Amino acid sequence: MTAGAGQRAEPNRTFVGIDIGGTKLHGLLVDSSGSVLRRVTVPTLAAEGSDAVAARIYALVECLLPEGGVAAIGLGAPGPLDSKTGTIIRTENLPFKDFPLAGLVERRFKVPTLLENDGSAAAFGEYAFGPARGSDPLLYLTASTGIGAGLVIGGTLYRGKSGNALEAGHISLMAGEGPACACGGRGCAEALASGSAIAARAREAAEAARTGKGKATRLAAFSDPGSKEAFALAAEGDAVAEDIVARALHYLGCCAATLVTLFDPEVLVIGGGLVKAGDRVRAAVEAAIAASPAASAGSCGIIAPGLGEDSGALGAAALAAKSFFGLDFARRS
Amino acid sequence: MTAGAGQRAEPNRTFVGIDIGGTKLHGLLVDSSGSVLRRVTVPTLAAEGSDAVAARIYALVECLLPEGGVAAIGLGAPGPLDSKTGTIIRTENLPFKDFPLAGLVERRFKVPTLLENDGSAAAFGEYAFGPARGSDPLLYLTASTGIGAGLVIGGTLYRGKSGNALEAGHISLMAGEGPACACGGRGCAEALASGSAIAARAREAAEAARTGKGKATRLAAFSDPGSKEAFALAAEGDAVAEDIVARALHYLGCCAATLVTLFDPEVLVIGGGLVKAGDRVRAAVEAAIAASPAASAGSCGIIAPGLGEDSGALGAAALAAKSFFGLDFARRS
Repeated sequence: MTAGAGQRAEPNRTFVGIDIGGTKLHGLLVDSSGSVLRRVTVPTLAAEGSDAVAARIYALVECLLPEGGVAAIGLGAPGPLDSKTGTIIRTENLPFKDFPLAGLVERRFKVPTLLENDGSAAAFGEYAFGPARGSDPLLYLTASTGIGAGLVIGGTLYRGKSGNALEAGHISLMAGEGPACACGGRGCAEALASGSAIAARAREAAEAARTGKGKATRLAAFSDPGSKEAFALAAEGDAVAEDIVARALHYLGCCAATLVTLFDPEVLVIGGGLVKAGDRVRAAVEAAIAASPAASAGSCGIIAPGLGEDSGALGAAALAAKSFFGLDFARRS
Repeated sequence: MTAGAGQRAEPNRTFVGIDIGGTKLHGLLVDSSGSVLRRVTVPTLAAEGSDAVAARIYALVECLLPEGGVAAIGLGAPGPLDSKTGTIIRTENLPFKDFPLAGLVERRFKVPTLLENDGSAAAFGEYAFGPARGSDPLLYLTASTGIGAGLVIGGTLYRGKSGNALEAGHISLMAGEGPACACGGRGCAEALASGSAIAARAREAAEAARTGKGKATRLAAFSDPGSKEAFALAAEGDAVAEDIVARALHYLGCCAATLVTLFDPEVLVIGGGLVKAGDRVRAAVEAAIAASPAASAGSCGIIAPGLGEDSGALGAAALAAKSFFGLDFARRS
């Protein structure tokens, strides 16, 4: 039955959203009411190259497709991107370079497809579906392998002129000095406070301990310690691991304070894999904001994302629904 | 003669705009066509206290008022402010504290009056009247006694939740370390790169040279050297002055790079008293943006303000015209 004029019933459309991460590809199928119908996660296996990863993205879409097909597909990926042409320009943690991913997906599935920065997609997911739904402005900061951010102003994603605003991982927190970042800069938030930065420090400390050049640490027992091991050993009282974690969280707090000072958000949602490591990450960001002399700090709520690992994929789907069909999940009753 | 319906002729309204600075109060009278009819500058004499400065602001308005009175008054002042209640919460360079300036002016002159952050007012002035008129987004960064900024997105000032967004002078460029800032923070852009920061370093260097504790510098010949003397002696080859200026401009460049990375503007207008000191300031900012690995850096134009010292006052007047009468100077033909 077709909905008659004036009934305002929406057609029962479904949308696919995919969050393309350096470690995993997380996809879901959502309907017009915002219900998640399917959810699939596969490993990215970035080392296999761009074509292999793209093939895995196509397969993931296949897994999610309902019988009648979907209305639109939204993809979230780390930038920089050209969201107008749906091209990934380059990424630190994925093998894509000038890769027209949205066009390839669109041609393959014959469905309108958009590509958005993953931080922006997650911000929009939290705006449309999360506990901070409808907040204005809503700022999202994610710390996992990398560091990203997104801003929703009055229900609209802030993209900037080139579509690459909010590159929070690549502001220098040390005035252009400090450790080199994969982007070419120095002292970037991502080089100091991300999961990969913590892992790099943990590896250095483990190597130094093993060769007798640094302090003893139980990190040395791991051949390739990561942020997970650093957090776990810090919690168990390992002084070297504690120092690594505390420094990284100090820098993450500085990054968050800079964002709040400049954007003056109603709510800061702090998410990402590092936050999963425990309340300690959010507590560090809260403390940094509380200590900030910025006038905006006092009025900014700080909350955890309510969508778990779905923020990015849900946001990508919601952006596709809004962009191609004018469907506004944040305003649904 | 009253304009008939459909004629679109605007009534011949006039607006007063005042830029309230730590050193001077700069006011002007502008008409509906955007022409500046009068322009008056008086010293702030901040040391005389809030009532004396307020009295001088009233007197300045009196000087600017045309015979028939004005339609609205716009005030730009350093923050943090509560622009909703028209209150200056506190400022580093002015004696106001929880001072309801807009209400006092409004009651005195019986004309709708608004108060806006001076960086935001200047950004709006450049958007409405300057060479970057209509740019989207337009980012304004000002370096003078202090450091401020403003952002215009799609013709609307970005204020943030509490109205205190864009406090660019108070982002820490040294991760919470470095010299103390009057705001209570450490390593703030204002404490490293403003005119007052340069003056502080110049005074320290002069004192060190005089007491034989530091390198010789011609700054020592001045009892109270400021940024003007530092720039002048740097240009003449004084190594100590050169070092002070070069460091400050390095930090100003870092501040600008952070803003461009986060806001991805179409145009960055770099203004303020320091820029008047010579092309060197703009060149330093241009170099920092060019060296930035941010994807947004390549697409951002960097220009000098076209309104000289009028940016803030013109912007305050334009904001009042827009807020109270819906008059949009940027769209006038």
